[in-house]
Amino acid sequence: MRLLLVNPNTTGSMTEQMAEIARSVAPPGTDIVPLTAKSGFPYISSRAEAQVAGALALEMIAGAADRTDAAIIAAFGDPGLSAARDLFGFPVVGMAQAALQMAAVLGERISIVTFSPVMRRWYTDSVCDAGLLSRFTGVRTPPTHLTDLGDVQDRLRPELLRLCALAAEEDGADVVVLGGAPLAGLASKLGNEAGVRLVDPISAATLQAVALASLARSQGRLAVRKGALAKPTMGLSPPLARHFEGKATP
Amino acid sequence: MRLLLVNPNTTGSMTEQMAEIARSVAPPGTDIVPLTAKSGFPYISSRAEAQVAGALALEMIAGAADRTDAAIIAAFGDPGLSAARDLFGFPVVGMAQAALQMAAVLGERISIVTFSPVMRRWYTDSVCDAGLLSRFTGVRTPPTHLTDLGDVQDRLRPELLRLCALAAEEDGADVVVLGGAPLAGLASKLGNEAGVRLVDPISAATLQAVALASLARSQGRLAVRKGALAKPTMGLSPPLARHFEGKATP
Amino acid sequence: MRLLLVNPNTTGSMTEQMAEIARSVAPPGTDIVPLTAKSGFPYISSRAEAQVAGALALEMIAGAADRTDAAIIAAFGDPGLSAARDLFGFPVVGMAQAALQMAAVLGERISIVTFSPVMRRWYTDSVCDAGLLSRFTGVRTPPTHLTDLGDVQDRLRPELLRLCALAAEEDGADVVVLGGAPLAGLASKLGNEAGVRLVDPISAATLQAVALASLARSQGRLAVRKGALAKPTMGLSPPLARHFEGKATP
Amino acid sequence: MRLLLVNPNTTGSMTEQMAEIARSVAPPGTDIVPLTAKSGFPYISSRAEAQVAGALALEMIAGAADRTDAAIIAAFGDPGLSAARDLFGFPVVGMAQAALQMAAVLGERISIVTFSPVMRRWYTDSVCDAGLLSRFTGVRTPPTHLTDLGDVQDRLRPELLRLCALAAEEDGADVVVLGGAPLAGLASKLGNEAGVRLVDPISAATLQAVALASLARSQGRLAVRKGALAKPTMGLSPPLARHFEGKATP
Amino acid sequence: MRLLLVNPNTTGSMTEQMAEIARSVAPPGTDIVPLTAKSGFPYISSRAEAQVAGALALEMIAGAADRTDAAIIAAFGDPGLSAARDLFGFPVVGMAQAALQMAAVLGERISIVTFSPVMRRWYTDSVCDAGLLSRFTGVRTPPTHLTDLGDVQDRLRPELLRLCALAAEEDGADVVVLGGAPLAGLASKLGNEAGVRLVDPISAATLQAVALASLARSQGRLAVRKGALAKPTMGLSPPLARHFEGKATP
Amino acid sequence: MRLLLVNPNTTGSMTEQMAEIARSVAPPGTDIVPLTAKSGFPYISSRAEAQVAGALALEMIAGAADRTDAAIIAAFGDPGLSAARDLFGFPVVGMAQAALQMAAVLGERISIVTFSPVMRRWYTDSVCDAGLLSRFTGVRTPPTHLTDLGDVQDRLRPELLRLCALAAEEDGADVVVLGGAPLAGLASKLGNEAGVRLVDPISAATLQAVALASLARSQGRLAVRKGALAKPTMGLSPPLARHFEGKATP
Repeated sequence: MRLLLVNPNTTGSMTEQMAEIARSVAPPGTDIVPLTAKSGFPYISSRAEAQVAGALALEMIAGAADRTDAAIIAAFGDPGLSAARDLFGFPVVGMAQAALQMAAVLGERISIVTFSPVMRRWYTDSVCDAGLLSRFTGVRTPPTHLTDLGDVQDRLRPELLRLCALAAEEDGADVVVLGGAPLAGLASKLGNEAGVRLVDPISAATLQAVALASLARSQGRLAVRKGALAKPTMGLSPPLARHFEGKATP
Repeated sequence: MRLLLVNPNTTGSMTEQMAEIARSVAPPGTDIVPLTAKSGFPYISSRAEAQVAGALALEMIAGAADRTDAAIIAAFGDPGLSAARDLFGFPVVGMAQAALQMAAVLGERISIVTFSPVMRRWYTDSVCDAGLLSRFTGVRTPPTHLTDLGDVQDRLRPELLRLCALAAEEDGADVVVLGGAPLAGLASKLGNEAGVRLVDPISAATLQAVALASLARSQGRLAVRKGALAKPTMGLSPPLARHFEGKATP
Repeated sequence: MRLLLVNPNTTGSMTEQMAEIARSVAPPGTDIVPLTAKSGFPYISSRAEAQVAGALALEMIAGAADRTDAAIIAAFGDPGLSAARDLFGFPVVGMAQAALQMAAVLGERISIVTFSPVMRRWYTDSVCDAGLLSRFTGVRTPPTHLTDLGDVQDRLRPELLRLCALAAEEDGADVVVLGGAPLAGLASKLGNEAGVRLVDPISAATLQAVALASLARSQGRLAVRKGALAKPTMGLSPPLARHFEGKATP
Repeated sequence: MRLLLVNPNTTGSMTEQMAEIARSVAPPGTDIVPLTAKSGFPYISSRAEAQVAGALALEMIAGAADRTDAAIIAAFGDPGLSAARDLFGFPVVGMAQAALQMAAVLGERISIVTFSPVMRRWYTDSVCDAGLLSRFTGVRTPPTHLTDLGDVQDRLRPELLRLCALAAEEDGADVVVLGGAPLAGLASKLGNEAGVRLVDPISAATLQAVALASLARSQGRLAVRKGALAKPTMGLSPPLARHFEGKATP
Repeated sequence: MRLLLVNPNTTGSMTEQMAEIARSVAPPGTDIVPLTAKSGFPYISSRAEAQVAGALALEMIAGAADRTDAAIIAAFGDPGLSAARDLFGFPVVGMAQAALQMAAVLGERISIVTFSPVMRRWYTDSVCDAGLLSRFTGVRTPPTHLTDLGDVQDRLRPELLRLCALAAEEDGADVVVLGGAPLAGLASKLGNEAGVRLVDPISAATLQAVALASLARSQGRLAVRKGALAKPTMGLSPPLARHFEGKATP
Repeated sequence: MRLLLVNPNTTGSMTEQMAEIARSVAPPGTDIVPLTAKSGFPYISSRAEAQVAGALALEMIAGAADRTDAAIIAAFGDPGLSAARDLFGFPVVGMAQAALQMAAVLGERISIVTFSPVMRRWYTDSVCDAGLLSRFTGVRTPPTHLTDLGDVQDRLRPELLRLCALAAEEDGADVVVLGGAPLAGLASKLGNEAGVRLVDPISAATLQAVALASLARSQGRLAVRKGALAKPTMGLSPPLARHFEGKATP
């Protein structure tokens, strides 16, 4: 099984860290293909950035689409997710949406804890897109934005544990999603210390992608998508153009 | 990995058929434990029946909870699902909810095709519970209820293919969930002939249960649930009583 | 007029107290038939408990259905309410739903004040089921759960008055529902002292049941319900089986 | 118990017919006080008309408010209902809202059948105001508007029976509200012939008003309303001015 | 272009102040026709008052409807707005609705800052009517109601600046609507000092009325409205009666 | 006043046609600056295309942002609208959203009539984004997609008139939006012949942009936006990079 792990940001070290976690939770024999954006932003925290990064994500997926079983958009706000589902014939999974959907199975009320107040609105949009606003208890963050995110899992550990406890005690959350690529993999390190169920988004997205690719496989092949009309394009990368022009191998 | 496959109906042959499909999609080494209700109804088609069958499902799960990684409630309307999530420390998955959530990733608009008009309202309730009503294009069924459901996949095959085509062409569905235990496994047999993406609920539920149990495992162990207050009980089955009284092994 | 007052909990003293209030508000000649569950829980505070208690409520109603004009499910979260409406031909009223609906006529914004923080989520679910979340200002409770509920109306009186005042002043509630069987009848004792309109749930449920039974009577007889298909059952109590099997006297 | 039956239209014969039905369903000793608007419209079928008629309803209620236990706004679209609840200290009940709320207890899906296509939008607004749109299966009406409404219950009887049957069979309604003052009392004449549960709005409103007035009585007295600031007025009828100026006897 | 500026309150000085602002933002050659109610209330702060004042607004508009291009209902809660849209053939604009719609284009999350806590609920209803509740961050007001509103823009200036800052910083508002006629024109005086985008309701309503009247003009003429059935009336002002009776010049 | 008219498609003739209409409705002295995308698609009919075209729209606006008073995204589905609002300090208006908002003032229920069935889903998304789904009566289109759109206003004229009539008569629409750039300007040509109020999207968007720019001007200057954190970028067009990096002239 071949899964694209598409980081629509330019921070390659983050891609590597997420790929490692994805490999650790995927079944043996899964081929995780990490891709990092060559232009755009070091991280995404607004709709304006997501508009650009989402277009880059389509280009990245189109360029690696051959023999792919599923793609993971590996940035918490899921830039380009609905567009990619519109364009490609294989399942496309978003890190935020997968984490929130799994959290919604594991408990009734869901919180997000993350590393910076800057992400609050952007992440709340994800909850809204996932249709889970009525079960959402809010985003908990440290009061200030750290400009240097290196080693953030260690430096913020006590603060993040405190925020998880507040989410559970004061907000009534049953499950906490640890949002944002810099916190990837932290859930398994905090374990029971958090006093509340945790969800790691990249693990959730990988496991959801595996499940969807297996579903496709078990049914022979998913019937082809009913996409939009093929049409001519100008100035797009050749693989992306082929998809929009209806010339990609299905 | 040990997964309970809990059929809250009394029809054992249906349990066997679903267990076989579950085994075929689960990764090697998964232990699928089928359970059939000893009282109740041959199948469920109303909220009144679900009230009773859901209570039976709790009893069945409690009786087999030891060393369980996840439970699947294997009836399309998911009787007892939210109650079971409230009571047990491991993930509990519903056949309808899992199928609908996976369908919602695979396409924008979702239809259910099933074998009898009797199920229409009951299945629509499931879509509502899953929070997906705004993306639902309706239930398509044959005009009349067959009293003998034996061999229904073969006898209704042309009719079901026709209903799938109508769901896609007239209702604008991108994905069709083939709802109801009697249609378990049919999706892989129809394949591309249906002209629309299909989802098999028992496959979807099994793969979702595997994903959630893997998520739990990857994070050491999910932190314990924040359940309701333990309290004394009267007249319940001993294993179920132990869960409500807070005496079950976590 | 014969009204069943069905307490799906095992605490008989509570049933008696509620029956007395019901008799005091019903018109002369109303026959209030109190029933107490013989198994289950001393009180209900979660969906898991409601799944079991709701099934018991169906059995209790079925056993006393003959010549009944309406039934009241006399526990604040209304366990089994929609199932009972599905199964029986006479009106079935829930204590929480009736209180919230009447409160919604008496004022624009509604609060619940109750005796324990444990009930908060469970009672909020009731508001949601009643479709009144957008007019709800929240549940106000004492900070801790009393294990001994005897004499709670007297012991908590100052605290409950304080919570009513907070609901009105800080939350902007026009009407306060005093939720939970242990507070049954308290509204008339607090009277104007609360500084806000109060609703007593068992009074509200009784008066709503009387109104619905009168409506049925004034129209000759309500046309028969369009229920689910009758079907065979296994292991249910004989009266409940008769209802599911379509053999009950209409 | 003194109940105002306020017809905000100018058609006195309709007021009399509704008062008679109200008296037939209210408990012995209830004093039904019928009031007919002295200006305005013969019937109401738009929001513009309801703006004017609702203001008249306030004036009519203010003029008869002394020693009143509850008021019924006796026109199906409930003109002035929320305004009256804002202004008066006793319960105010709307014919449409009461009928729809009772219907929502008697069944899951609700239809309105009425005598003219002109009322469709206006009545749908009532369902929306009652928060019941998600359970509404639509308005069924004859294809054309009769200009002479005399004897309409007899002349339209076969057509209305046919519409009730369509509401049940095609739309899936469990309960049909027979909307509009010209159909007042028809439900009890059609009885089981309709093949679906019927609700008569003026009966429903009367019984709801009785229930709410009884609730108020059982609790000593409802605590005073938290209305808007009293303020000076110009040019209003003296009783209405007294209410707005905070000088009415509570 | 002729625009009615209809103040449904009796405070003429307020009408003049709003007309002056309307003239300053409208294009040259726009004829702003100010009208002040001759009966009713000095200001409006409840639904009961709006029921009466809205009926007056219909009468005022009907009396000046000839050769009118659009009407502005110049009170923040928009009394009579939907009724007027139902009755008249030219566009009718509400001060609250126009301000909120423009604010919704200028930013994602919207707050209202006003001069008195008394307006809180009434103004929140406006947000609800505009369908913008999900993007609303609340009403911010001084803690007490001033009985003398003369010079309120100067006396409350520091307090209102503080409330704007709180709306932006604590509530996360992108845009603040300065609600209520007494604050008309304040936005342009505060300017950048507020630290957040401001919207002046009477400016917004005037500009929206100009835009809608221009739209009508650019399309020749808006096709005639599909209103309710014309019908006889009793006791209404002659111009209003003509509109309801279908005798007004289109 | 300088308004950008940004066509995110590559069809320049369409841009010219829309610019001409914009100039005809804008007040004298308005400078309409038309821009046509240099890469992308001849027209847009899916979310995948909108992801790419929306990113192009940001680049186009950034390149012409100096001394701009407002921007119009001149494609009916509004690609990049919320992203552009996030990034730029002046108002940004969408053709679909402006048309739908104006239609919502002109009538209660809104329909879209367009030239091709291919646009149905894409245009429905716009109604959803505008928060107007509950007042939407659907998209009416010819049954088939014309590959040659030249002269479409003339060739489809009878069919479009028929669709407008169906929207009004069968669907109950009060206002019809003539959606899609190929129908730009048609509303004023059909006039009263359509039998229902029409809205021309490019006229609506231009007039809304004028109103918002005037609002900004009347308040001195809108306070600066509270955007996302400035951050480094890679590989973006220099003007777009400057906006994301916080270096653009405000």
